[in-house]
Amino acid sequence: MISRLFSFIGADNGPWRVIQSRPIVGDDLPKVARLDVVADADARSYPQARWLLRGITSNERYVMREEKAQLVATQQGLGRTEATLAALIPLRKNAAWWALTQDERRQIFEEQSHHTQIGLRYLPPIARRLHHCRDLSENEPFDFLTWFEFAPADEKDFDQLLAQLRASEEWKYVEREVDIRLIRD
Amino acid sequence: MISRLFSFIGADNGPWRVIQSRPIVGDDLPKVARLDVVADADARSYPQARWLLRGITSNERYVMREEKAQLVATQQGLGRTEATLAALIPLRKNAAWWALTQDERRQIFEEQSHHTQIGLRYLPPIARRLHHCRDLSENEPFDFLTWFEFAPADEKDFDQLLAQLRASEEWKYVEREVDIRLIRD
Repeated sequence: MISRLFSFIGADNGPWRVIQSRPIVGDDLPKVARLDVVADADARSYPQARWLLRGITSNERYVMREEKAQLVATQQGLGRTEATLAALIPLRKNAAWWALTQDERRQIFEEQSHHTQIGLRYLPPIARRLHHCRDLSENEPFDFLTWFEFAPADEKDFDQLLAQLRASEEWKYVEREVDIRLIRD
Repeated sequence: MISRLFSFIGADNGPWRVIQSRPIVGDDLPKVARLDVVADADARSYPQARWLLRGITSNERYVMREEKAQLVATQQGLGRTEATLAALIPLRKNAAWWALTQDERRQIFEEQSHHTQIGLRYLPPIARRLHHCRDLSENEPFDFLTWFEFAPADEKDFDQLLAQLRASEEWKYVEREVDIRLIRD
Protein backbone atom coordinates (compact mmCIF):
# COMPACT_ATOMS: atom_id res chain seq x y z
CA MET A 1 0.00 0.00 0.00
CA ILE A 2 1.23 3.49 -0.82
CA SER A 3 1.66 5.50 2.35
CA ARG A 4 -0.69 8.47 2.71
CA LEU A 5 0.20 9.41 6.29
CA PHE A 6 3.42 11.35 6.90
CA SER A 7 5.10 12.69 10.02
CA PHE A 8 7.38 15.73 10.18
CA ILE A 9 9.70 15.40 13.15
CA GLY A 10 11.44 18.44 14.58
CA ALA A 11 14.49 17.31 16.58
CA ASP A 12 18.28 17.51 16.89
CA ASN A 13 18.79 15.05 14.06
CA GLY A 14 17.39 14.19 10.65
CA PRO A 15 18.48 14.67 7.04
CA TRP A 16 17.16 18.23 6.71
CA ARG A 17 18.89 21.13 8.53
CA VAL A 18 16.72 24.09 9.50
CA ILE A 19 18.04 27.32 7.93
CA GLN A 20 15.26 29.56 9.14
CA SER A 21 11.96 29.16 10.99
CA ARG A 22 9.54 31.99 11.63
CA PRO A 23 5.86 32.48 12.42
CA ILE A 24 3.90 34.31 9.71
CA VAL A 25 0.60 34.44 11.62
CA GLY A 26 -0.07 33.20 15.16
CA ASP A 27 2.17 31.15 17.43
CA ASP A 28 5.60 29.92 16.41
CA LEU A 29 6.70 26.29 16.76
CA PRO A 30 9.56 25.50 19.17
CA LYS A 31 12.90 25.97 17.42
CA VAL A 32 14.66 22.81 16.25
CA ALA A 33 17.98 22.17 14.52
CA ARG A 34 16.89 19.47 12.10
CA LEU A 35 13.88 17.75 10.56
CA ASP A 36 12.99 14.26 9.42
CA VAL A 37 10.07 13.25 7.19
CA VAL A 38 8.84 9.70 7.69
CA ALA A 39 5.84 7.63 6.70
CA ASP A 40 3.25 6.90 9.38
CA ALA A 41 5.12 7.42 12.67
CA ASP A 42 3.82 8.48 16.04
CA ALA A 43 5.41 10.45 18.84
CA ARG A 44 6.06 7.34 20.96
CA SER A 45 8.65 6.16 18.41
CA TYR A 46 10.46 9.54 18.59
CA PRO A 47 10.88 10.43 22.28
CA GLN A 48 13.71 12.80 21.34
CA ALA A 49 11.44 14.90 19.07
CA ARG A 50 10.63 18.47 20.14
CA TRP A 51 7.52 18.28 17.96
CA LEU A 52 5.89 15.86 15.56
CA LEU A 53 3.35 17.05 13.01
CA ARG A 54 1.25 14.53 11.09
CA GLY A 55 -0.77 14.88 7.91
CA ILE A 56 -2.40 12.65 5.33
CA THR A 57 -2.47 13.06 1.57
CA SER A 58 -6.03 13.00 0.27
CA ASN A 59 -8.26 13.79 -2.68
CA GLU A 60 -8.20 17.37 -3.93
CA ARG A 61 -10.96 19.59 -2.65
CA TYR A 62 -11.13 22.51 -5.11
CA VAL A 63 -9.40 21.55 -8.34
CA MET A 64 -11.49 21.14 -11.52
CA ARG A 65 -10.74 18.54 -14.19
CA GLU A 66 -8.95 20.99 -16.50
CA GLU A 67 -6.81 22.38 -13.69
CA LYS A 68 -5.95 18.85 -12.55
CA ALA A 69 -4.83 17.96 -16.06
CA GLN A 70 -2.53 21.02 -16.07
CA LEU A 71 -1.17 20.14 -12.62
CA VAL A 72 -0.50 16.51 -13.55
CA ALA A 73 1.24 17.61 -16.75
CA THR A 74 3.54 20.11 -15.03
CA GLN A 75 4.26 19.01 -11.47
CA GLN A 76 7.45 17.23 -10.45
CA GLY A 77 8.10 14.51 -7.93
CA LEU A 78 9.83 14.77 -4.57
CA GLY A 79 13.39 13.56 -4.06
CA ARG A 80 15.07 15.13 -7.13
CA THR A 81 18.86 15.32 -6.67
CA GLU A 82 19.03 19.02 -7.55
CA ALA A 83 16.25 19.93 -5.10
CA THR A 84 18.47 20.45 -2.06
CA LEU A 85 16.22 23.07 -0.46
CA ALA A 86 12.85 22.45 1.13
CA ALA A 87 10.14 24.29 3.01
CA LEU A 88 7.56 23.03 5.47
CA ILE A 89 4.57 25.36 5.84
CA PRO A 90 2.12 24.29 8.56
CA LEU A 91 -1.07 26.31 8.32
CA ARG A 92 -4.44 26.58 10.04
CA LYS A 93 -7.55 28.33 8.72
CA ASN A 94 -10.10 29.96 11.00
CA ALA A 95 -13.64 28.90 11.93
CA ALA A 96 -15.15 31.33 9.39
CA TRP A 97 -13.42 29.42 6.56
CA TRP A 98 -14.74 26.05 7.72
CA ALA A 99 -18.27 27.45 8.10
CA LEU A 100 -18.31 28.41 4.41
CA THR A 101 -20.00 26.07 1.94
CA GLN A 102 -18.13 24.30 -0.86
CA ASP A 103 -19.13 26.85 -3.53
CA GLU A 104 -18.06 29.76 -1.31
CA ARG A 105 -14.69 28.15 -0.50
CA ARG A 106 -14.02 27.36 -4.16
CA GLN A 107 -14.99 30.95 -5.09
CA ILE A 108 -12.42 32.39 -2.66
CA PHE A 109 -9.78 29.73 -3.36
CA GLU A 110 -9.72 30.07 -7.13
CA GLU A 111 -11.98 32.73 -8.65
CA GLN A 112 -10.81 35.39 -6.14
CA SER A 113 -7.40 34.12 -5.04
CA HIS A 114 -6.25 32.15 -8.11
CA HIS A 115 -4.54 29.62 -5.85
CA THR A 116 -4.10 26.90 -8.49
CA GLN A 117 -3.30 29.36 -11.29
CA ILE A 118 -0.57 31.02 -9.19
CA GLY A 119 0.76 27.60 -8.24
CA LEU A 120 0.83 26.46 -11.88
CA ARG A 121 2.93 29.48 -12.82
CA TYR A 122 5.65 28.53 -10.33
CA LEU A 123 5.27 24.84 -9.70
CA PRO A 124 7.18 23.20 -12.56
CA PRO A 125 10.55 23.45 -10.79
CA ILE A 126 8.98 23.34 -7.32
CA ALA A 127 7.73 19.94 -6.13
CA ARG A 128 4.90 20.01 -3.63
CA ARG A 129 2.97 17.59 -1.44
CA LEU A 130 -0.09 18.68 0.55
CA HIS A 131 -1.01 16.86 3.76
CA HIS A 132 -4.38 17.28 5.49
CA CYS A 133 -4.51 17.22 9.32
CA ARG A 134 -7.94 18.61 10.17
CA ASP A 135 -9.76 15.26 10.01
CA LEU A 136 -6.99 13.11 11.55
CA SER A 137 -8.30 13.92 15.00
CA GLU A 138 -10.06 16.75 16.80
CA ASN A 139 -6.89 18.18 18.35
CA GLU A 140 -4.51 18.82 15.47
CA PRO A 141 -2.56 22.09 15.79
CA PHE A 142 -2.73 22.73 12.02
CA ASP A 143 -5.18 22.01 9.19
CA PHE A 144 -2.54 21.56 6.48
CA LEU A 145 1.16 20.80 6.14
CA THR A 146 2.62 21.65 2.76
CA TRP A 147 6.04 20.33 1.87
CA PHE A 148 8.02 21.90 -1.00
CA GLU A 149 11.34 20.87 -2.58
CA PHE A 150 13.32 23.01 -5.02
CA ALA A 151 16.81 23.84 -6.26
CA PRO A 152 18.68 26.87 -4.83
CA ALA A 153 18.23 28.69 -8.18
CA ASP A 154 14.44 28.56 -7.67
CA GLU A 155 14.34 29.96 -4.15
CA LYS A 156 13.44 33.49 -5.27
CA ASP A 157 10.54 32.17 -7.32
CA PHE A 158 9.39 30.19 -4.33
CA ASP A 159 9.42 33.33 -2.15
CA GLN A 160 7.42 35.12 -4.83
CA LEU A 161 4.88 32.30 -4.95
CA LEU A 162 4.37 32.53 -1.18
CA ALA A 163 4.16 36.32 -1.28
CA GLN A 164 1.40 36.16 -3.91
CA LEU A 165 -0.61 33.58 -1.98
CA ARG A 166 -0.18 35.47 1.30
CA ALA A 167 -1.55 38.62 -0.33
CA SER A 168 -4.68 36.79 -1.54
CA GLU A 169 -8.25 36.87 -0.22
CA GLU A 170 -7.90 33.22 0.85
CA TRP A 171 -5.09 34.08 3.29
CA LYS A 172 -7.44 36.37 5.28
CA TYR A 173 -8.79 33.10 6.68
CA VAL A 174 -5.35 31.88 7.82
CA GLU A 175 -5.03 32.14 11.60
CA ARG A 176 -1.73 30.31 12.05
CA GLU A 177 1.18 29.83 9.65
CA VAL A 178 4.82 28.93 10.26
CA ASP A 179 7.47 29.05 7.54
CA ILE A 180 10.34 26.58 8.01
CA ARG A 181 13.18 26.54 5.48
CA LEU A 182 15.57 23.62 5.18
CA ILE A 183 18.64 22.34 3.38
CA ARG A 184 19.57 18.72 2.81
CA ASP A 185 23.14 18.16 4.03
CA MET B 1 -14.63 21.86 22.97
CA ILE B 2 -17.45 20.19 21.03
CA SER B 3 -16.52 16.61 20.22
CA ARG B 4 -16.09 15.87 16.51
CA LEU B 5 -14.74 12.32 16.83
CA PHE B 6 -17.21 9.51 17.54
CA SER B 7 -16.82 5.77 18.01
CA PHE B 8 -19.47 3.17 17.23
CA ILE B 9 -18.84 0.09 19.35
CA GLY B 10 -20.35 -3.25 18.37
CA ALA B 11 -20.46 -5.52 21.44
CA ASP B 12 -22.72 -7.47 23.79
CA ASN B 13 -23.80 -4.35 25.62
CA GLY B 14 -24.73 -0.76 24.91
CA PRO B 15 -27.98 1.26 24.83
CA TRP B 16 -28.91 0.31 21.25
CA ARG B 17 -30.06 -3.25 20.45
CA VAL B 18 -29.38 -4.52 16.93
CA ILE B 19 -32.63 -5.51 15.16
CA GLN B 20 -31.07 -6.35 11.82
CA SER B 21 -27.63 -6.10 10.22
CA ARG B 22 -26.93 -6.94 6.60
CA PRO B 23 -24.32 -6.19 3.95
CA ILE B 24 -25.65 -4.22 0.97
CA VAL B 25 -22.39 -4.30 -1.04
CA GLY B 26 -19.15 -6.08 -0.11
CA ASP B 27 -18.20 -7.72 3.16
CA ASP B 28 -20.47 -7.81 6.19
CA LEU B 29 -19.35 -6.75 9.67
CA PRO B 30 -19.23 -9.40 12.42
CA LYS B 31 -22.67 -9.74 14.02
CA VAL B 32 -23.16 -8.06 17.38
CA ALA B 33 -26.09 -7.89 19.80
CA ARG B 34 -25.80 -4.26 20.82
CA LEU B 35 -24.17 -0.94 19.98
CA ASP B 36 -22.83 2.04 21.88
CA VAL B 37 -22.00 5.48 20.46
CA VAL B 38 -19.36 7.40 22.40
CA ALA B 39 -17.22 10.49 21.88
CA ASP B 40 -13.54 9.96 21.11
CA ALA B 41 -12.83 6.40 22.32
CA ASP B 42 -10.30 3.91 21.08
CA ALA B 43 -10.33 0.12 20.98
CA ARG B 44 -8.00 -0.19 23.99
CA SER B 45 -10.76 1.19 26.24
CA TYR B 46 -13.25 -1.40 24.91
CA PRO B 47 -11.50 -4.79 24.98
CA GLN B 48 -14.92 -6.49 24.93
CA ALA B 49 -15.89 -4.87 21.60
CA ARG B 50 -16.24 -7.08 18.51
CA TRP B 51 -15.61 -4.01 16.37
CA LEU B 52 -15.09 -0.30 16.83
CA LEU B 53 -15.67 2.13 13.97
CA ARG B 54 -14.50 5.73 14.27
CA GLY B 55 -15.46 8.80 12.29
CA ILE B 56 -15.14 12.57 12.59
CA THR B 57 -17.70 15.22 11.76
CA SER B 58 -16.30 17.76 9.34
CA ASN B 59 -17.15 20.56 6.94
CA GLU B 60 -19.57 19.68 4.14
CA ARG B 61 -17.97 18.80 0.83
CA TYR B 62 -20.71 19.27 -1.78
CA VAL B 63 -23.47 21.43 -0.35
CA MET B 64 -24.03 24.93 -1.78
CA ARG B 65 -25.12 27.90 0.33
CA GLU B 66 -28.79 27.66 -0.66
CA GLU B 67 -28.89 23.92 0.05
CA LYS B 68 -27.18 24.45 3.40
CA ALA B 69 -29.78 27.07 4.36
CA GLN B 70 -32.55 24.56 3.54
CA LEU B 71 -30.79 21.82 5.52
CA VAL B 72 -30.23 24.02 8.56
CA ALA B 73 -33.88 25.14 8.46
CA THR B 74 -35.30 21.60 8.29
CA GLN B 75 -32.97 19.15 10.03
CA GLN B 76 -33.55 17.90 13.55
CA GLY B 77 -31.13 17.07 16.36
CA LEU B 78 -30.14 13.67 17.69
CA GLY B 79 -31.53 12.34 20.98
CA ARG B 80 -35.23 13.15 20.50
CA THR B 81 -37.42 11.07 22.88
CA GLU B 82 -39.70 9.81 20.09
CA ALA B 83 -36.75 8.72 17.91
CA THR B 84 -36.39 5.22 19.35
CA LEU B 85 -35.08 3.68 16.12
CA ALA B 86 -31.67 4.25 14.60
CA ALA B 87 -29.54 3.10 11.70
CA LEU B 88 -25.78 2.99 11.27
CA ILE B 89 -24.69 2.85 7.63
CA PRO B 90 -20.91 2.40 7.19
CA LEU B 91 -19.95 2.94 3.56
CA ARG B 92 -16.84 2.97 1.39
CA LYS B 93 -16.50 4.45 -2.10
CA ASN B 94 -14.13 3.01 -4.68
CA ALA B 95 -10.85 4.37 -6.06
CA ALA B 96 -12.60 5.71 -9.18
CA TRP B 97 -14.68 8.05 -6.99
CA TRP B 98 -11.65 9.42 -5.16
CA ALA B 99 -9.79 9.97 -8.44
CA LEU B 100 -12.56 12.29 -9.67
CA THR B 101 -12.11 16.03 -9.30
CA GLN B 102 -14.33 18.21 -7.13
CA ASP B 103 -16.53 19.38 -10.04
CA GLU B 104 -17.02 15.79 -11.24
CA ARG B 105 -17.90 14.53 -7.76
CA ARG B 106 -20.36 17.39 -7.19
CA GLN B 107 -21.90 16.72 -10.62
CA ILE B 108 -22.58 13.07 -9.73
CA PHE B 109 -23.53 13.78 -6.11
CA GLU B 110 -26.16 16.41 -6.80
CA GLU B 111 -26.89 17.20 -10.46
CA GLN B 112 -27.14 13.49 -11.37
CA SER B 113 -28.02 11.82 -8.06
CA HIS B 114 -29.88 14.63 -6.24
CA HIS B 115 -28.39 13.44 -2.95
CA THR B 116 -29.20 16.59 -0.95
CA GLN B 117 -32.57 17.13 -2.64
CA ILE B 118 -33.64 13.55 -1.86
CA GLY B 119 -32.38 13.97 1.70
CA LEU B 120 -34.29 17.23 2.15
CA ARG B 121 -37.53 15.53 1.11
CA TYR B 122 -37.22 12.95 3.91
CA LEU B 123 -34.96 14.47 6.53
CA PRO B 124 -37.28 16.63 8.61
CA PRO B 125 -38.39 13.71 10.83
CA ILE B 126 -35.10 11.84 10.35
CA ALA B 127 -32.08 13.18 12.26
CA ARG B 128 -28.70 12.48 10.67
CA ARG B 129 -25.02 12.87 11.52
CA LEU B 130 -22.30 12.16 8.96
CA HIS B 131 -18.84 11.05 10.13
CA HIS B 132 -15.78 11.00 7.86
CA CYS B 133 -13.21 8.21 8.30
CA ARG B 134 -11.11 8.36 5.14
CA ASP B 135 -8.62 10.93 6.46
CA LEU B 136 -8.43 9.63 10.05
CA SER B 137 -5.71 7.20 9.01
CA GLU B 138 -4.68 5.21 5.97
CA ASN B 139 -6.28 1.97 7.16
CA GLU B 140 -9.90 2.78 7.85
CA PRO B 141 -12.34 0.08 6.70
CA PHE B 142 -14.97 2.66 5.64
CA ASP B 143 -14.96 6.21 4.24
CA PHE B 144 -18.16 7.34 5.96
CA LEU B 145 -20.37 6.36 8.88
CA THR B 146 -23.85 7.85 8.77
CA TRP B 147 -26.01 7.69 11.86
CA PHE B 148 -29.77 8.21 11.61
CA GLU B 149 -32.43 8.48 14.35
CA PHE B 150 -36.19 8.38 13.72
CA ALA B 151 -39.55 7.41 15.19
CA PRO B 152 -41.10 4.01 14.31
CA ALA B 153 -43.76 5.81 12.23
CA ASP B 154 -41.02 7.15 9.94
CA GLU B 155 -39.28 3.83 9.27
CA LYS B 156 -40.98 3.31 5.89
CA ASP B 157 -39.92 6.78 4.75
CA PHE B 158 -36.39 6.01 5.85
CA ASP B 159 -36.36 2.79 3.80
CA GLN B 160 -37.61 4.76 0.81
CA LEU B 161 -34.87 7.37 1.26
CA LEU B 162 -32.22 4.64 1.24
CA ALA B 163 -33.79 2.92 -1.78
CA GLN B 164 -33.68 6.16 -3.76
CA LEU B 165 -30.08 6.87 -2.88
CA ARG B 166 -29.02 3.27 -3.60
CA ALA B 167 -30.59 3.52 -7.07
CA SER B 168 -28.61 6.69 -7.87
CA GLU B 169 -25.56 7.19 -10.09
CA GLU B 170 -23.50 8.07 -6.98
CA TRP B 171 -24.06 4.59 -5.51
CA LYS B 172 -22.31 2.96 -8.50
CA TYR B 173 -19.12 4.13 -6.73
CA VAL B 174 -20.00 2.39 -3.45
CA GLU B 175 -17.87 -0.72 -2.97
CA ARG B 176 -18.86 -1.57 0.60
CA GLU B 177 -22.02 -0.78 2.55
CA VAL B 178 -23.52 -2.36 5.66
CA ASP B 179 -27.01 -1.52 6.95
CA ILE B 180 -27.42 -1.86 10.73
CA ARG B 181 -30.83 -1.20 12.29
CA LEU B 182 -31.25 -0.54 16.00
CA ILE B 183 -33.78 0.11 18.72
CA ARG B 184 -33.18 1.95 21.97
CA ASP B 185 -34.34 -0.24 24.85
